[in-house]
Amino acid sequence: MTYSLGQLMERFKNQQFFQKGKKNTICDVEGVKVGHAMLAEGDAQTGVTVILPSANPYTEKLRANASVINAFGKASGLLQVMELGFLESPIALCSTLSVGNVWQAVCDRLIEENPDLSTVNPVVLECNDSYLSDIRTVHADKDLTNQAFEAASDSFALGSVGAGRGMVSFGLKGGIGSASCVAPIDNKPYTVGALTLCNYGRLDDLTIAGEPVGKYIKELSTPTEDVGSVIVILATDIPLSSLQMKRCCNRVQTGLARLGNHVGHGSGEFALMYSTANSQKATDKNAFVCVTELNDQHIDIVFRMVIEATEEAALRALLEAETVTGYKGRQVFSIKEAYKRK
Amino acid sequence: MTYSLGQLMERFKNQQFFQKGKKNTICDVEGVKVGHAMLAEGDAQTGVTVILPSANPYTEKLRANASVINAFGKASGLLQVMELGFLESPIALCSTLSVGNVWQAVCDRLIEENPDLSTVNPVVLECNDSYLSDIRTVHADKDLTNQAFEAASDSFALGSVGAGRGMVSFGLKGGIGSASCVAPIDNKPYTVGALTLCNYGRLDDLTIAGEPVGKYIKELSTPTEDVGSVIVILATDIPLSSLQMKRCCNRVQTGLARLGNHVGHGSGEFALMYSTANSQKATDKNAFVCVTELNDQHIDIVFRMVIEATEEAALRALLEAETVTGYKGRQVFSIKEAYKRK
Amino acid sequence: MTYSLGQLMERFKNQQFFQKGKKNTICDVEGVKVGHAMLAEGDAQTGVTVILPSANPYTEKLRANASVINAFGKASGLLQVMELGFLESPIALCSTLSVGNVWQAVCDRLIEENPDLSTVNPVVLECNDSYLSDIRTVHADKDLTNQAFEAASDSFALGSVGAGRGMVSFGLKGGIGSASCVAPIDNKPYTVGALTLCNYGRLDDLTIAGEPVGKYIKELSTPTEDVGSVIVILATDIPLSSLQMKRCCNRVQTGLARLGNHVGHGSGEFALMYSTANSQKATDKNAFVCVTELNDQHIDIVFRMVIEATEEAALRALLEAETVTGYKGRQVFSIKEAYKRK
Amino acid sequence: MTYSLGQLMERFKNQQFFQKGKKNTICDVEGVKVGHAMLAEGDAQTGVTVILPSANPYTEKLRANASVINAFGKASGLLQVMELGFLESPIALCSTLSVGNVWQAVCDRLIEENPDLSTVNPVVLECNDSYLSDIRTVHADKDLTNQAFEAASDSFALGSVGAGRGMVSFGLKGGIGSASCVAPIDNKPYTVGALTLCNYGRLDDLTIAGEPVGKYIKELSTPTEDVGSVIVILATDIPLSSLQMKRCCNRVQTGLARLGNHVGHGSGEFALMYSTANSQKATDKNAFVCVTELNDQHIDIVFRMVIEATEEAALRALLEAETVTGYKGRQVFSIKEAYKRK
Repeated sequence: MTYSLGQLMERFKNQQFFQKGKKNTICDVEGVKVGHAMLAEGDAQTGVTVILPSANPYTEKLRANASVINAFGKASGLLQVMELGFLESPIALCSTLSVGNVWQAVCDRLIEENPDLSTVNPVVLECNDSYLSDIRTVHADKDLTNQAFEAASDSFALGSVGAGRGMVSFGLKGGIGSASCVAPIDNKPYTVGALTLCNYGRLDDLTIAGEPVGKYIKELSTPTEDVGSVIVILATDIPLSSLQMKRCCNRVQTGLARLGNHVGHGSGEFALMYSTANSQKATDKNAFVCVTELNDQHIDIVFRMVIEATEEAALRALLEAETVTGYKGRQVFSIKEAYKRK
Repeated sequence: MTYSLGQLMERFKNQQFFQKGKKNTICDVEGVKVGHAMLAEGDAQTGVTVILPSANPYTEKLRANASVINAFGKASGLLQVMELGFLESPIALCSTLSVGNVWQAVCDRLIEENPDLSTVNPVVLECNDSYLSDIRTVHADKDLTNQAFEAASDSFALGSVGAGRGMVSFGLKGGIGSASCVAPIDNKPYTVGALTLCNYGRLDDLTIAGEPVGKYIKELSTPTEDVGSVIVILATDIPLSSLQMKRCCNRVQTGLARLGNHVGHGSGEFALMYSTANSQKATDKNAFVCVTELNDQHIDIVFRMVIEATEEAALRALLEAETVTGYKGRQVFSIKEAYKRK
Repeated sequence: MTYSLGQLMERFKNQQFFQKGKKNTICDVEGVKVGHAMLAEGDAQTGVTVILPSANPYTEKLRANASVINAFGKASGLLQVMELGFLESPIALCSTLSVGNVWQAVCDRLIEENPDLSTVNPVVLECNDSYLSDIRTVHADKDLTNQAFEAASDSFALGSVGAGRGMVSFGLKGGIGSASCVAPIDNKPYTVGALTLCNYGRLDDLTIAGEPVGKYIKELSTPTEDVGSVIVILATDIPLSSLQMKRCCNRVQTGLARLGNHVGHGSGEFALMYSTANSQKATDKNAFVCVTELNDQHIDIVFRMVIEATEEAALRALLEAETVTGYKGRQVFSIKEAYKRK
Repeated sequence: MTYSLGQLMERFKNQQFFQKGKKNTICDVEGVKVGHAMLAEGDAQTGVTVILPSANPYTEKLRANASVINAFGKASGLLQVMELGFLESPIALCSTLSVGNVWQAVCDRLIEENPDLSTVNPVVLECNDSYLSDIRTVHADKDLTNQAFEAASDSFALGSVGAGRGMVSFGLKGGIGSASCVAPIDNKPYTVGALTLCNYGRLDDLTIAGEPVGKYIKELSTPTEDVGSVIVILATDIPLSSLQMKRCCNRVQTGLARLGNHVGHGSGEFALMYSTANSQKATDKNAFVCVTELNDQHIDIVFRMVIEATEEAALRALLEAETVTGYKGRQVFSIKEAYKRK
């Protein structure tokens, strides 16, 4: 191994184009909150992460769109987002076989909070943590989901936390990552933030700043195939149309490829993006609304922010993770640990 | 009104092209079972319907595909079906705000039944029964879902039953409909069966056999907008590729249009089709599989079977429904009742 | 046959909901022009129709979208319209095997008219007129295309003209149809106009105002299968987003179904819609643009305008057509002629 | 610059996983032929490349599918391929504003070669060579297209040839690339071949084997924005279903990302894949056909072949290109020249 992890990160930073937001997380987009809750004992290494996109997306709907990279996944809620171009609920992330419980918990909260609600579209996305957690027995429930909501703030942990607790990425400990990019448009700074739930990739493929580091630390990895998944949530304050956000989501695959993702058959890969600009009151009965929209001639910079934020968020899921021991005593090393042992 | 309901049905039958299966339901496709469970007291007028596509779709995956007509709906599981072209779970239908509970109940059953399962893609589809049922308070749960599974057989009721209990269609009582078409291909009879959950349409638009009957019985209808939904499940024993079934699902909109559907903004309209031919063992490790496929030169007859079965299934949801009184004392007339009172 | 054609049309009109524009064509949307050119001698029964959506869509791009109903067709230009949500060229309609010539002719005109143009996306759509025209030998060329452009005005003929010259629909003479719907939104009248190129359908299936008229006049029809196609162009002055126009295009299938369309395997069916509102200067370098957008809560009326205008435009293609004799002496009756002979 | 181009290529080869076919081009898939024709004088630096997928795809249709990465492009024919899952024509590549002529030339050849043909779906894809060629004046025509057909063989040149003559990629001379991967499936060798037309990318972004080489040779590049395009054609002898090939095409974006592609707003990026297995006679009237299909459990290796072949084909477009001087005396350096001058 020619580079230390520190040197690699230096190299990585040098290759980046954009400035980071203050927190370098999705919460650099104002109003976004993230909360985690988890089970982390013995065979139970699982959790829930919620992203609150704004104060109340049900009453004030947010323009949004989504993209399917590989739909070996149980994503719920994306079809309506893609049809209408609006997001009207928080986004919850969890383990594959808990989607129902978490969906219902999100729905029940929305019912409670919104007295007039008789329909709503919860968005729940998942990855499969069955290597480290006893997925057949341990399900996130209403309580755990509510804990995640209650924990939501604009400052949140990364790595082996929340829905990321049991995730494995590139044969190393994966989980929650986040990053942001800031760039001036029309002389005003705008932000794209990404949050990733990383549970994908073969160690062989891991590439950081162009270095095939996975090949060097291979012997320490968990012998899994590329059957995992990755979820990417993007938030921005740039006024983008839903169509433009679809195109942004389509670039997420490029960001993931830069770390070595090969979009395995068994991988559920979905991207969802929303903008806090141009939100629309559910009660607005006016026939017409006025919307500010980015001129397409300036959209390349946004595509690049999406790619860079996605790549870094996926990388940070590895860097911030801790080694975890779980189901059947299985242990998955963090990348930091893998480097130490090398 | 120039025609009685009986005369209308005569006219409808005369306009049909295909023979019906023995039961004239989706269960004319061998191996298909349907089960209902419901709550039908006071403010609780809701339920669950399950379609068991075959003995065990998890161990023996079925070729399938799906199509989105209008995604104002919370359909779960369709993205994976569209990606892989396989269905691996029963299909459950329910009320909008119960999707989570029902998803989890289906998942839990699959976990129990399949000892090696660590991932599965339950398919849950919904319509909104909030006019007749107290949707904010009353949710289908694990027990009700299990009851539907236990009730599954190749003979099942239509109309105001199961997930159809609280549904309203064309301002009249809607619910579960089903029909089938049989046609010879290569001198052997093949079947397309449809099952619909009908909760869509304005009475003004209702057209039976070309007659604008909705306009005549209008004053008896429930004053709802076209905010409902319709789910169409198609089963067949014709060996179709997943791509061919996608194209079949795309014709469902045409079948629905024949009754007067206008695909309202607030309507969740989804079609899913699977074939019992060419099922594939989950444990099959062979590199190659042999598949029989319909030659596209013969596919027009299948498209027509899909359209005719869909139209009749949607109509039978009305015809077989009973008048129901529910939430806040609201009453929705069946079409039979509406004709009697006329 | 219980109804005369006149009585049928009376019945049809009574079932319509919307007011018509003054011309009852796509040109009721201000600024739209249509031009035809054709060959109508012996074996050559073919032509070109151009729709000029506005003064210069290349310099002032129009919001637009498109939808694929069944892609057995050689439509060119739709993918870019769907990606960007903008239309930047006139729309040309022609015969299947002339697409290349017509594309190049449109492109060459755009090059001439726009000195800075170095890329452009011509939209060319086609149906197959090989029953009445010698499609293998007779191709529209640059001259014919230019004639169509030069003929463009806000008043144009329907029926067996332009690209519709050789088209057959429901076994009867088809071709160019058009219609419009006007409705108030926010107390101001808005228009949706449709133009159809009709070359689809089996006579058996033809349904007007719910009457299965095709079955009655069947013996006079051309014995073709449903291998034709139908193109639907929609124009509006309602300020719709591209995403909203996608959803409008998705309703075209419903409008076509009302006349008896079954979306045959060999049918190329595409819908394209654009709005003259919110056009965007190609030279606009501003980072942000201001856009007026219809509130989705009012979109159902637009969906209905689309469906009604599409249905009537398709019907008018039949009603306005004349009997044509062409390739190999084949004759296709107009619906008027068919009724007379009955 | 730490690496010479030779060292970089060594590094690149070491990072590859698969064996190459004998030719390391798309023609390693048996039966595939490629032909070029070009204009290479003064302001005319343009051409046509044709891929003959098999002896006669019109009479013996090939299973195929396609994917849209970014549709700022004038791709013609893809919609029908995606609908039916079959390719029935050669594939032609050319310059943006020549699509019509080339389409018509391909169509006319098909008419001549197939006496019964009355409809066909030519596939024509393009990139914009307006930096090096006078795109407004110089169009490929029928003769040039026919020359490309006549030149078709299983051995063809790469780089600044055919449709690639005027293309610019990463600010360097781009054009035609090709590569192949061979891997055993069920103990028999199978091949995936890629052919790329490369006209995309900013030099800043160029990454070879993880090395950000673009940054080092930047000062020599052509100052273009990322407004180009890239077309990827994939051929295989693996028996894949059309649905599986769609998923393969979806991985092309990942292969392109590995060289530094960022999918610019103005880039037309399309992938098309076909298989020479399971071809289907157009005259086959049998109701059912027997098809061999890869078991999805083995598909990951195919996805990886697609990614690796795409990446290498795109790289070889650069490596095999020569410096070209064209329109207005503009000169674009080959990567070899750029390294020499460094």
